[in-house]
Amino acid sequence: MKRFALIGCGRIGTLHADVIAAHPGASLDTVFDPNADAARAIADATGARVAGSATDAITSEATDAVLIASATPTHADLIEAAVAAGKPVFCEKPIDLDLQRVRQCRAAVANANVPVQIGFNRRFDPGHRAVRDRAQSGEIGDVFQVIITSRDPAPPPRAYAAQSGGLFRDMTIHDFDLARFMLGEDIAAVQAIGAALINPALASDPGDIDTAMVILETASGRQCQINNSRQAAYGYDQRVEVLGRDGMLISANRTETGVEAYSATTTAAAAPYLNFFLERYRTAFDRQFDAFLALIEGRADCEATFADGEAALVLAECANMALHERRSVAVEEIADRSE
Amino acid sequence: MKRFALIGCGRIGTLHADVIAAHPGASLDTVFDPNADAARAIADATGARVAGSATDAITSEATDAVLIASATPTHADLIEAAVAAGKPVFCEKPIDLDLQRVRQCRAAVANANVPVQIGFNRRFDPGHRAVRDRAQSGEIGDVFQVIITSRDPAPPPRAYAAQSGGLFRDMTIHDFDLARFMLGEDIAAVQAIGAALINPALASDPGDIDTAMVILETASGRQCQINNSRQAAYGYDQRVEVLGRDGMLISANRTETGVEAYSATTTAAAAPYLNFFLERYRTAFDRQFDAFLALIEGRADCEATFADGEAALVLAECANMALHERRSVAVEEIADRSE
Amino acid sequence: MKRFALIGCGRIGTLHADVIAAHPGASLDTVFDPNADAARAIADATGARVAGSATDAITSEATDAVLIASATPTHADLIEAAVAAGKPVFCEKPIDLDLQRVRQCRAAVANANVPVQIGFNRRFDPGHRAVRDRAQSGEIGDVFQVIITSRDPAPPPRAYAAQSGGLFRDMTIHDFDLARFMLGEDIAAVQAIGAALINPALASDPGDIDTAMVILETASGRQCQINNSRQAAYGYDQRVEVLGRDGMLISANRTETGVEAYSATTTAAAAPYLNFFLERYRTAFDRQFDAFLALIEGRADCEATFADGEAALVLAECANMALHERRSVAVEEIADRSE
Amino acid sequence: MKRFALIGCGRIGTLHADVIAAHPGASLDTVFDPNADAARAIADATGARVAGSATDAITSEATDAVLIASATPTHADLIEAAVAAGKPVFCEKPIDLDLQRVRQCRAAVANANVPVQIGFNRRFDPGHRAVRDRAQSGEIGDVFQVIITSRDPAPPPRAYAAQSGGLFRDMTIHDFDLARFMLGEDIAAVQAIGAALINPALASDPGDIDTAMVILETASGRQCQINNSRQAAYGYDQRVEVLGRDGMLISANRTETGVEAYSATTTAAAAPYLNFFLERYRTAFDRQFDAFLALIEGRADCEATFADGEAALVLAECANMALHERRSVAVEEIADRSE
Repeated sequence: MKRFALIGCGRIGTLHADVIAAHPGASLDTVFDPNADAARAIADATGARVAGSATDAITSEATDAVLIASATPTHADLIEAAVAAGKPVFCEKPIDLDLQRVRQCRAAVANANVPVQIGFNRRFDPGHRAVRDRAQSGEIGDVFQVIITSRDPAPPPRAYAAQSGGLFRDMTIHDFDLARFMLGEDIAAVQAIGAALINPALASDPGDIDTAMVILETASGRQCQINNSRQAAYGYDQRVEVLGRDGMLISANRTETGVEAYSATTTAAAAPYLNFFLERYRTAFDRQFDAFLALIEGRADCEATFADGEAALVLAECANMALHERRSVAVEEIADRSE
Repeated sequence: MKRFALIGCGRIGTLHADVIAAHPGASLDTVFDPNADAARAIADATGARVAGSATDAITSEATDAVLIASATPTHADLIEAAVAAGKPVFCEKPIDLDLQRVRQCRAAVANANVPVQIGFNRRFDPGHRAVRDRAQSGEIGDVFQVIITSRDPAPPPRAYAAQSGGLFRDMTIHDFDLARFMLGEDIAAVQAIGAALINPALASDPGDIDTAMVILETASGRQCQINNSRQAAYGYDQRVEVLGRDGMLISANRTETGVEAYSATTTAAAAPYLNFFLERYRTAFDRQFDAFLALIEGRADCEATFADGEAALVLAECANMALHERRSVAVEEIADRSE
Repeated sequence: MKRFALIGCGRIGTLHADVIAAHPGASLDTVFDPNADAARAIADATGARVAGSATDAITSEATDAVLIASATPTHADLIEAAVAAGKPVFCEKPIDLDLQRVRQCRAAVANANVPVQIGFNRRFDPGHRAVRDRAQSGEIGDVFQVIITSRDPAPPPRAYAAQSGGLFRDMTIHDFDLARFMLGEDIAAVQAIGAALINPALASDPGDIDTAMVILETASGRQCQINNSRQAAYGYDQRVEVLGRDGMLISANRTETGVEAYSATTTAAAAPYLNFFLERYRTAFDRQFDAFLALIEGRADCEATFADGEAALVLAECANMALHERRSVAVEEIADRSE
Repeated sequence: MKRFALIGCGRIGTLHADVIAAHPGASLDTVFDPNADAARAIADATGARVAGSATDAITSEATDAVLIASATPTHADLIEAAVAAGKPVFCEKPIDLDLQRVRQCRAAVANANVPVQIGFNRRFDPGHRAVRDRAQSGEIGDVFQVIITSRDPAPPPRAYAAQSGGLFRDMTIHDFDLARFMLGEDIAAVQAIGAALINPALASDPGDIDTAMVILETASGRQCQINNSRQAAYGYDQRVEVLGRDGMLISANRTETGVEAYSATTTAAAAPYLNFFLERYRTAFDRQFDAFLALIEGRADCEATFADGEAALVLAECANMALHERRSVAVEEIADRSE
């Protein structure tokens, strides 16, 4: 039974608390959040202790592993503190909005001897994973194209956008990772367009986009298209399509039930899609945590590494550059010169 | 190029005129209808001659074959006249509402040396036929159950019901034939329920039902369910499902386009189904006629025989008896004692 | 927190133990099974106490409510014992294979002052229930027809069939209940056919069927069709279709993921269906238990009553009589004369 | 009854001959092809006269309108000849592979007083058009994104590729036109990637690609993604998706029948898609021709103008430039300086 400290008790932290509580191989022993009420709420629901500080939570003897679900700017510091304390870390994406900070942190992680896993939950969605595994097994032959549709049901508050690092680092980052996961090959070049179509005011304040399209190329010429929208009236739209020489595999959307309605105006009308990631990816979150337990117990390799976290952020940087310079940006342009 | 006489220029006759006109191997040379305007309309559209009588149309030297699409009570007489004249006959279903009359006619057909085909168009629907052929080829192993859903988009005028012979002889007759076609084995027993649910007034005048369910059994125990409704708000509902030991095949409904709509209330909403048989079964009508040409040119066997027409009517009789006597009726109960 | 005693620790008992363990408002405190190993296995997994007898489990002070998942012949006795002890009871279906025994038990239940719920889990399936609720709300107008497809993935061992009471009392009983739930009106008459098509040897030993079709009628003429098969190569097939004056609602099958495969031979090929009821109806089992908690805490009415359990068994009796006598059996023919 | 001269009797010319023959308002009177056998084959099938030259066909008194389906390099000359002769022209796409030649031709067309329609058949596909019309009617609110999937079932012979002008001018040109049709707004900028993944040898000889992705932006920021492949093992893949503020519309693929197969390995498996454009877009070709007749009879405006043909070619040029220069190309970069 692994005892967890959870740092960060907001929406995603609460989800992780539920996931830990539901897992027979883990317990939530310690929680911390600068917002004491948030920490208390989870503690009351789970019987966990509220720590006095993040450091206290991390270094406690009652903590076998650390789950970081706090605000993005704290991630890198907390990862470093945890690995310094010899505690395995699961950290939500993104590692940091600043690529330089990520690269500093990487050194600490590399020197430590404890596993670190980044929260790319979509890798663990049963549908997406089945498509990846079946494609990798050769079912559709050589993979030529990946098409990722990723649309939120409704835009976040503008305050969220202001501190999110922008669409590519906040939302598309999941798709960048999924593209790498599906292609099984590193991305070589990025092109992107974007606009504030849903809420044009966003363009000037905070200067973000809400609708985007991205094209990725691998060194061997494989192709990936991403389309993003911060609004999909019909629910959270999460599709992955992989085209190969011998066929195609699609991970399609899910509805809560299999109900279809027929009327004078429509046939086979299903309900709107599961809304939002807490519902759509709940199984993925469970399996992601299961994989982390297997990792820290030495039963499996890491399925979403620190390097994956960095690579997705690099692609987000490239996309921002491509968007502003209106050109294809080679990933090596922002490669780490320190290596 | 086979020259056709068409007798009966109503809705279904007009459809057959179109089918003949579109076929490169046939021409419509002669038409007749007691309603001279109806005959004239088709003649004007196709260049056919309007005959002075059905007999004239049948016996004309310019007639190679006869297509009977007139009122049901005239079918048997016209079939007899045509085969007496040595002309191949295609006749719309039902042969007659009176089984005794059908059996008289059968003798005339048996003694003649010209082919007769009955208008069971659904046997020629590409979807239904593919299911039958694939099931027969063994794709799903032994066939256990057939489920037929057959619902009209809207009830006919009450005047139509009054002379139709009742739901089982008018509407279900297609499903009885389809059941035999799908099962590939004769039916041994029939059970049925029915009610006037859409328009309760129908129950007393003319004394018909508009909603029904039928169960059929073969001698070897295979099973078939039919459900009928004179109203389906979402369009003409025509489905066939065949369950076998190793799988299932379904011939599903068709929409005019592949358009799907997504909104705040629905996903993947298609349009109502093709409405009505002129649209849904147009390809079936074309292929049915093609099969008739192949038959009269000696290139193929008959795919919907007079005996099939009689057998479907026998099942309709059984269903009526089962409905009124509230019991399973063995088909042999109304077998032809004259044989 | 309601403390439960679970009697019966086989396959379905183990499922209920999981359901109780996962519910925040209930705990599993006591278990009993004549097979001590089975009881011990659940006790070890949940921390429950193994009782020395069913009576011990029922009457223990640590038992607030009783969940009966034991062999069918013990159900009625255990229900009577529980209500005599003043403990609310949840009992798996069927109440008993013998209708007279059920009616005896009914008197005990009626005189007791504690709630009793019968295990008709399908009433709680989110899809089936949404269809029922939407139909009841008037979305599709007057309800005319219900079509229930209910096929197991593979036949049970022959030993199971021998003590199951036959297909109608063992398997179709769920569909009989679902028909009543969907129609919202009592059934007046029953017709049925059945055969041992999957395994013909079953017909003589133990004298059962494995493939069946049933027609039900209500007093007002509404219609329901059920088709059953003990084998569906493509997985557990559970569909409900409701046709009304203004439209249709379908509760369709579920697959584990939304993956679709496209190849040189197929498009949009999904995986086989969820297999078997533990997977397909897991959510239904959770919600069923939730409803039982609400019932015993006085927060809701009973959604699957003892009377529902009796009514489903009456329909099974009618179906057996209809099968053997080859006629429509009126439900009042086996009405309780003692009333 | 409009009398047509058909110039070009290859695969697409034969299709147009069928379309004309099937239309009640048109007749095919004259055909010409440098390959006399090809011309003769269509003449024999339709009763048309074989002209001695294209000029003869165009200028014949028996020609009311000209349908150009010859090799691409002849299109512009033939258009000029036809409009000079005062004959309305329907011309297959592309107008020419050389944009300068197209612009020369435009002057001739502009000065003539007869209508010219370009063969963008997809505008007339019932599904695509319904999506466009419904989107334009406001059903899904402001349009944000269009996603076009366009994949051929199998690559053309290499000889075809060599004279086709390359993927963007030969294949994507339909998608460029469809993007403009769906967006209802001119394209401002183009990005593209492409590779020879299916047949790598194509990259050097003739120097073409077989797999591509394109991003288009309008001046107002609307976005369109195209993905192309010369090979789709599962059949001709033709999808259009339009995302708007209030919903989404999809024009999905079509299969020949509604048959679904269920087995131990798959559920709901449909047949491969209609293969190829002759089948998938047959209705579109019929409606396209119907629109042309309405145009030349003054009953409707042109629905696929010469300017549309030029605009699609401009986008193909931009895509080629974008591909080679690895940057976003503004459409105005290759605007006509002569204007």
